[in-house]
Amino acid sequence: MEKIENIPEKMNAVMCCGPKDYQYQQVPVPTVGEDDILVKVEACGVCAGDVKSWRGAAMFWGDENQPRWNDPPCVAGHEFIGRVAAIGSRAKEKHSLGLGDRAIAEQIVPCWQCRYCKGGEYWMCEQAHIHGHQKNVADGGMAEFIRFGKNDVVHKVSGDLKPEHAAMIEPLSCSVHTVSRAQIQFSDVVVIAGLGPIGLCKLQLAKLKNPKLLIAVDAKPMRLELAKELGADVAIDFTKQDAVAEVMKLTNGYGCDVYIHNSGHPSGVVQGLKMVRKRGRFIEFSVFSAETSVDWSIIGDRKELDIYGSHISGLDGYPVAIDFLEKGIIKVDKIVTHVHPLANWEEAFIQAERGADSIKVVLKP
Amino acid sequence: MEKIENIPEKMNAVMCCGPKDYQYQQVPVPTVGEDDILVKVEACGVCAGDVKSWRGAAMFWGDENQPRWNDPPCVAGHEFIGRVAAIGSRAKEKHSLGLGDRAIAEQIVPCWQCRYCKGGEYWMCEQAHIHGHQKNVADGGMAEFIRFGKNDVVHKVSGDLKPEHAAMIEPLSCSVHTVSRAQIQFSDVVVIAGLGPIGLCKLQLAKLKNPKLLIAVDAKPMRLELAKELGADVAIDFTKQDAVAEVMKLTNGYGCDVYIHNSGHPSGVVQGLKMVRKRGRFIEFSVFSAETSVDWSIIGDRKELDIYGSHISGLDGYPVAIDFLEKGIIKVDKIVTHVHPLANWEEAFIQAERGADSIKVVLKP
Amino acid sequence: MEKIENIPEKMNAVMCCGPKDYQYQQVPVPTVGEDDILVKVEACGVCAGDVKSWRGAAMFWGDENQPRWNDPPCVAGHEFIGRVAAIGSRAKEKHSLGLGDRAIAEQIVPCWQCRYCKGGEYWMCEQAHIHGHQKNVADGGMAEFIRFGKNDVVHKVSGDLKPEHAAMIEPLSCSVHTVSRAQIQFSDVVVIAGLGPIGLCKLQLAKLKNPKLLIAVDAKPMRLELAKELGADVAIDFTKQDAVAEVMKLTNGYGCDVYIHNSGHPSGVVQGLKMVRKRGRFIEFSVFSAETSVDWSIIGDRKELDIYGSHISGLDGYPVAIDFLEKGIIKVDKIVTHVHPLANWEEAFIQAERGADSIKVVLKP
Amino acid sequence: MEKIENIPEKMNAVMCCGPKDYQYQQVPVPTVGEDDILVKVEACGVCAGDVKSWRGAAMFWGDENQPRWNDPPCVAGHEFIGRVAAIGSRAKEKHSLGLGDRAIAEQIVPCWQCRYCKGGEYWMCEQAHIHGHQKNVADGGMAEFIRFGKNDVVHKVSGDLKPEHAAMIEPLSCSVHTVSRAQIQFSDVVVIAGLGPIGLCKLQLAKLKNPKLLIAVDAKPMRLELAKELGADVAIDFTKQDAVAEVMKLTNGYGCDVYIHNSGHPSGVVQGLKMVRKRGRFIEFSVFSAETSVDWSIIGDRKELDIYGSHISGLDGYPVAIDFLEKGIIKVDKIVTHVHPLANWEEAFIQAERGADSIKVVLKP
Repeated sequence: MEKIENIPEKMNAVMCCGPKDYQYQQVPVPTVGEDDILVKVEACGVCAGDVKSWRGAAMFWGDENQPRWNDPPCVAGHEFIGRVAAIGSRAKEKHSLGLGDRAIAEQIVPCWQCRYCKGGEYWMCEQAHIHGHQKNVADGGMAEFIRFGKNDVVHKVSGDLKPEHAAMIEPLSCSVHTVSRAQIQFSDVVVIAGLGPIGLCKLQLAKLKNPKLLIAVDAKPMRLELAKELGADVAIDFTKQDAVAEVMKLTNGYGCDVYIHNSGHPSGVVQGLKMVRKRGRFIEFSVFSAETSVDWSIIGDRKELDIYGSHISGLDGYPVAIDFLEKGIIKVDKIVTHVHPLANWEEAFIQAERGADSIKVVLKP
Repeated sequence: MEKIENIPEKMNAVMCCGPKDYQYQQVPVPTVGEDDILVKVEACGVCAGDVKSWRGAAMFWGDENQPRWNDPPCVAGHEFIGRVAAIGSRAKEKHSLGLGDRAIAEQIVPCWQCRYCKGGEYWMCEQAHIHGHQKNVADGGMAEFIRFGKNDVVHKVSGDLKPEHAAMIEPLSCSVHTVSRAQIQFSDVVVIAGLGPIGLCKLQLAKLKNPKLLIAVDAKPMRLELAKELGADVAIDFTKQDAVAEVMKLTNGYGCDVYIHNSGHPSGVVQGLKMVRKRGRFIEFSVFSAETSVDWSIIGDRKELDIYGSHISGLDGYPVAIDFLEKGIIKVDKIVTHVHPLANWEEAFIQAERGADSIKVVLKP
Repeated sequence: MEKIENIPEKMNAVMCCGPKDYQYQQVPVPTVGEDDILVKVEACGVCAGDVKSWRGAAMFWGDENQPRWNDPPCVAGHEFIGRVAAIGSRAKEKHSLGLGDRAIAEQIVPCWQCRYCKGGEYWMCEQAHIHGHQKNVADGGMAEFIRFGKNDVVHKVSGDLKPEHAAMIEPLSCSVHTVSRAQIQFSDVVVIAGLGPIGLCKLQLAKLKNPKLLIAVDAKPMRLELAKELGADVAIDFTKQDAVAEVMKLTNGYGCDVYIHNSGHPSGVVQGLKMVRKRGRFIEFSVFSAETSVDWSIIGDRKELDIYGSHISGLDGYPVAIDFLEKGIIKVDKIVTHVHPLANWEEAFIQAERGADSIKVVLKP
Repeated sequence: MEKIENIPEKMNAVMCCGPKDYQYQQVPVPTVGEDDILVKVEACGVCAGDVKSWRGAAMFWGDENQPRWNDPPCVAGHEFIGRVAAIGSRAKEKHSLGLGDRAIAEQIVPCWQCRYCKGGEYWMCEQAHIHGHQKNVADGGMAEFIRFGKNDVVHKVSGDLKPEHAAMIEPLSCSVHTVSRAQIQFSDVVVIAGLGPIGLCKLQLAKLKNPKLLIAVDAKPMRLELAKELGADVAIDFTKQDAVAEVMKLTNGYGCDVYIHNSGHPSGVVQGLKMVRKRGRFIEFSVFSAETSVDWSIIGDRKELDIYGSHISGLDGYPVAIDFLEKGIIKVDKIVTHVHPLANWEEAFIQAERGADSIKVVLKP
């Protein structure tokens, strides 16, 4: 076991204690064994999911349709980045990391026992432990320290990135996986619907595939402006224009080839099913807070669509995200709009929830 | 132009005249040119869609969300089979058919001008003319004669099949396409949900792929019995058993690999999304009469599904259906339960709609 | 650690000692730890590869183009089946096996560290240890006992199968993987070229996909006869008929859709490239003892082929092979033609090499 | 029929008359009907295939293994571009073209009757008529005029491009199809082997997919320099470096994910099979003048490769090529190195064949 000097016994952390019950507390710094790494957190982004969990959404806390998934009290946050503060001997050998190196663990903590883990699809792990949601086995990064354990998938990250930009690796990794699922061709007209931090990453990634036409759809002028700056050929404000009609006009009445949905709003699904062409691809990434009611005839009988769901980062998400950020191919400086000290977590959560002038809000311990 | 003797000038036909307005009428026998074939109809099946069109469903007659698709007055019916009664010189050369040969045209009449027709996906033709729905350009087979025109896709069929069995070629061709979309592997657990004529064809086709386990789900004991006879390893009556729980039990809690949905009921979608495993394949073929309300988070964030829509018969549907019926590999003798003379069309439609003791109902002119 | 009584200290084994140097020796029974299983071998098939290794082929012993792959002295044989004779506590928990249970380990011993092992493609493990080829880490099954270690992929097998039939699990698992790679459709004309034990398994598996036409090609009348019995629609003796011309005749001059090559002869490649249609699929499984000289223009410019290589058993090979043998869906009773006691290994190898009246030859300790 | 004034009766043309027998002749200007377009040629590139046909290569003129494909005497050349000089009424309606518009026909003249043409794969047409190789039905563009007939696939092209750059549409279209076959991912290491005009186009197209690393391999310093300018991360001169070893070094010993082969030399195949990783993709586009001798075990047993052949331009090749050239996304100004008057065709052919300081050589009538 190697460790830096002066690791404290207690640390500040945003603790997920229950629905509508997140607290800023002093908790013990995690203990680490020979398979573990203790990481001093440099930054941790606030995800829309963090806010929904705080607000008490059913997908986190359960209801009649689904069991509780959160296991409190645990440290919140899965968009973390940090530097090695202590490392066990076996972890050191396995990961080729030294004290002070910047490192990240993937958001999922695979069980390595289920059919998905065994078959190379560990991001779909049946156990589904995600950092920030299950105490002890998957604590999060909204704290001064976080432990990466034996089951974690760990990557080294360049120390040159700003911490708040490196905190974008997780959302960017999800974007990489989604865009891969879309199999974008040179001849495709691609629509990105929903321009939050992840939508804006996907927009850039889609641009890197050089489709025939890249269309961004949202309701916020500031985000539409940024989308244009980041590569959108056309930006449509659906509150001011009939987005479906616009896309039909741009495609000789056929519709777009690819629709990538990130908004989390049922209206985004309905819009997508209308504007995608027959035999087109509809990629669904969103987390919804309401059910979507729509005529499923359109999926089969009318359009024979391919609908591809996308969950977190897939197999290549993290390596590609790290590579693209390090090379500066993906730009996040205008996506990360606000940085707060950890103690101001509540203000940060509210700001992220509103999204009025913010896009990605990051906490720094 | 070659023709048989004694082709009459008038013929009996079930005419689609408007919503809730189908009529048994005397109409002119179609005239044929050098690119055309006149076919004497031997049999024509009653599709669930025929009944819905008769009942005035919006997908046929339009509403605020969709334009009218039917173009009346036209002869109804797309599940026809017949024999060549007259054939133009260019048609003869193109199709290698002679007087008296049994022939079928695919249900769609492609425009051969749109991007789908040009790109080998003519079954998705943007114009979407289907026999039985557009007057003159796509009249149907519930009549004594039908014309196959220049744009039709025509196949020769063995004269040995019973006419009412040959009328199953169209529904079987749709089943072939759907099952192809499912890419069934030896290791798959496959669920067929909805055991109408098409569901029972898909069940047999899925069996021909030899999956690990083949499960049939329906609410009618007679159809579940027949499913077992036709190859289902397990038949679940969802009114008596918790179908989702049963499938979970049969799959170590993972869920099925493939779910093929034919019921047209929103509950069949909800059931499928619950019982399909993470990264499984959900094949949607149904025509729905109501919207489906469901949390789309399950498609992306929870399960990363592949949802494949399926429309009519694809590229190989007809050749494979004809081959399998001629070889006796697919059995339809217990699926075709009732045959009526054309004049009794209304009784036949009602019987098909009820489906109490009937599965496929066929009309004979 | 649980163990049966009377496990001896020494056992008889066919040892791979060097090129042209295999010996029947007394060697120590493997020792087992808490992660291991000791299996009493019931049978072990003789693979064409075993014979080639014995004969000193370069792919096993190296030459100027490739390093030595065999690591002698090791026990030969990878087509083994046996019963648990001793099992460590961790192995017992991991595999749910008890003393006396029949068990099999996959032929490859994955490293679980390389990109293939981590990405769910462990059968392509960069380290490439195969039972029967590397001493200590991957000894084989031509002995009274074999050890399955921590890295092994172990499956339980029904005790009802005859041992010599259960020894066919490994070759059948390879066949499952190859046939999966071929993505056989109902409309396909499929050629199986080379009817050794594996070719005859692939033939049966291809039949289970119900292609339009299934053609077997070989030079041995006995094997062609058996192919017909096992499902071939057409069997072509290429020494008596022009196989390419026959296939062209059967496909309206287009060629077959799928060509599965198992012969290991360059002439089988040349024949396949000639008889496969444009945009067809050519599946290459063979191990060759000579180079193949052919004009590669046919692959791209002339035919735009998809050539899919296939290596051992893939992800689903073993589970499917075990399931199909247990269910009796795949028949191997006429494929396993000869059984010899272990001591007669040399006679068995020579018989397998000649293949005059034998197909699969199996050793029993 | 609309036509420009002063269309002459005779024109100059490079005629393919026989093996080693190409002649500069005066021939009649093609006559055009209501389905046809007469195009005044602005430029026509010299393809490596043109030179091989002139030199008498067997794939054009036949030998014991293949029939003669050329049908002389016909006008040579398939890399043409021109402007509408006359247009029939039906052609005008079909193609929305007017006099003076710049237009191109795809190199292949599909029969629209074979299974490939009917199934949307017309570039694989069984009849295989290519402009420049069959008299009357598929004359080429090395002349003052060329006729586009009823079966031709015609596209409109911007008048803003230089004629010699527009002549690159055909080779670029082939490159688009090849690169599409490679399914390049962000995480891929891609090797482009062979940097002729098409290799340099593919290099740029691969760059537009933004792979992790893009490696160019050739033997000519000038072309390697240009490759770097056009996007290669690494350029390897295989006469000075061990290309396989270099690629292994750049990929942690695994090998490249994608190998795109354009050289036409057997050594390029051998090199590719060595440097591509297990389960990698090898794309074969070349036309070879000699057989390739190699151990096919590497395709299946060793590496389980996917080898994808690629023939001409596929379905999207022309539209994408035209779009990318018009947008300036693909640069050809340094690829088109030499322009000659039509009369100097022989000098141009020899220059193209040598390729010492030339890359693409273009003729202008």
